[in-house]
Amino acid sequence: MRTSPMLEHLMEALRCLPGVGPKSAQRMAFHLLQRDRKGGLQLADALSKAMTEIGHCKECRTFTEEDVCNICNNPKRCENGLLCVVESPADIAALEATGQYSGRYFVLMGHLSPLDGIGPSDIGLDVLDFRLQRGDVTEVILATNPTVEGEATAHYIGELCREHGVSASRIAHGVPMGGELELVDGTTLSHSLLGRQKLS
Amino acid sequence: MRTSPMLEHLMEALRCLPGVGPKSAQRMAFHLLQRDRKGGLQLADALSKAMTEIGHCKECRTFTEEDVCNICNNPKRCENGLLCVVESPADIAALEATGQYSGRYFVLMGHLSPLDGIGPSDIGLDVLDFRLQRGDVTEVILATNPTVEGEATAHYIGELCREHGVSASRIAHGVPMGGELELVDGTTLSHSLLGRQKLS
Repeated sequence: MRTSPMLEHLMEALRCLPGVGPKSAQRMAFHLLQRDRKGGLQLADALSKAMTEIGHCKECRTFTEEDVCNICNNPKRCENGLLCVVESPADIAALEATGQYSGRYFVLMGHLSPLDGIGPSDIGLDVLDFRLQRGDVTEVILATNPTVEGEATAHYIGELCREHGVSASRIAHGVPMGGELELVDGTTLSHSLLGRQKLS
Repeated sequence: MRTSPMLEHLMEALRCLPGVGPKSAQRMAFHLLQRDRKGGLQLADALSKAMTEIGHCKECRTFTEEDVCNICNNPKRCENGLLCVVESPADIAALEATGQYSGRYFVLMGHLSPLDGIGPSDIGLDVLDFRLQRGDVTEVILATNPTVEGEATAHYIGELCREHGVSASRIAHGVPMGGELELVDGTTLSHSLLGRQKLS
C-alpha cells in the first residue's frame, strides 16, 4: 500500500524518459517534491509546449517551432552552397559544436531500412530531390552514421546527387583523435589506411 | 546557432532532474519529440499536478495529496501500536517493499543537523511529541540512516520516547545479507559482533 496515487502516477510517467527505471524515477520524483517544485513546474510547462508546438522545418526537416528553422532562414548559411545530410537533429548539434561547418543541413530522421519498411520517401528523399533540383546546392556532404544502414543511405543519396549533377562527398572514416592505435578495431583501421592523405 | 529556442528551453528544463546533464537532457528531449510525444504530454500533466497538489500528511508528514495518507488512514495499520520513524518518504517505499512491517510511519524529512540550523521542530519532532502524548503508540522503531546525523537523531528521539514512557528500539546494524565478510567495513563488523543473537 502506497501513500499517494498521484506520486505513483508521476513515477510511472517519468519512466517514459530514456534510461529512467523505477529507482531513478523515484529519486527524481522525491527530489522535485522535496527540493525543486518550481523547477518541476517549469519542466511541465516546457514539456507541454515542446510536445504540442515543435514540428519539422519545411526545408531541412529538423525540429523547430517555426515553419523554417533558424539555420535555413539565415542567408549566410547558403553562401557556400554546402548541404550536409545527417540522420538526426542530434547530429546537427554535434556538428554545430565543432564550429567547422557554415553550410545548411538536411535531416533524414532515420536511415534507409527496407526490412523495416523504411524507404526513400520515409526519410524525406523526395524533399531532398526537390532541393537538389532547385540548383542552390553545389556540394552534398554525406554525414550519415558509419553503420551498414548509414553507408547504404549515403550510397543511395550519392546516386541521387549524380543524377542531378551535384557533387557529393562522404565524411572521413579513420582513427579517432586522442585514441590509441592498438585499441582501434580492424575495420576502422582499414578505412584509415585506405583514406590516407599525402603529407608531402 | 541552434534550430529551435523551444527545444533549447526543454533541454535546460530537463536538467532540474537529478543525474541529468546536458547530454542526457538532449537525448531525453529528442527521444520524446521523435518517439513518444504522448508520453511527454502525460509527464507534463503528471508533473504539474504533483507539484501543485501534493503536500504532507498531517499525521506522518509523508507526501500525499490528501489530508491524511493511505497508511495513516488504514485502521489495520494502528492495531499493533508500532510507529516506525524514517528520514524520508523513499525509506517508507523501501520498508513497504519488504512486506515485513504492518505498523504506521513517521517521516522526519531530514535529520537533526545543528550546524545547518536544523533543529527538532524542523524535522517535525513537535508533531511526534504530540502523537506520543496521544497514547496510541506502544513502540517506536527508529529507522533513521546509520550515519552520524541519523544516529544522533535516533538518540534524541529515543530520549523523547523515554519521557513519554513509550518503548523505543533501533533497527539492527550488521553484515548485509548476501555480502562477503571480508569485504564488510570494520564499523559494521563491530556492530554485528555487539548485536549478536543467541541461537541456542
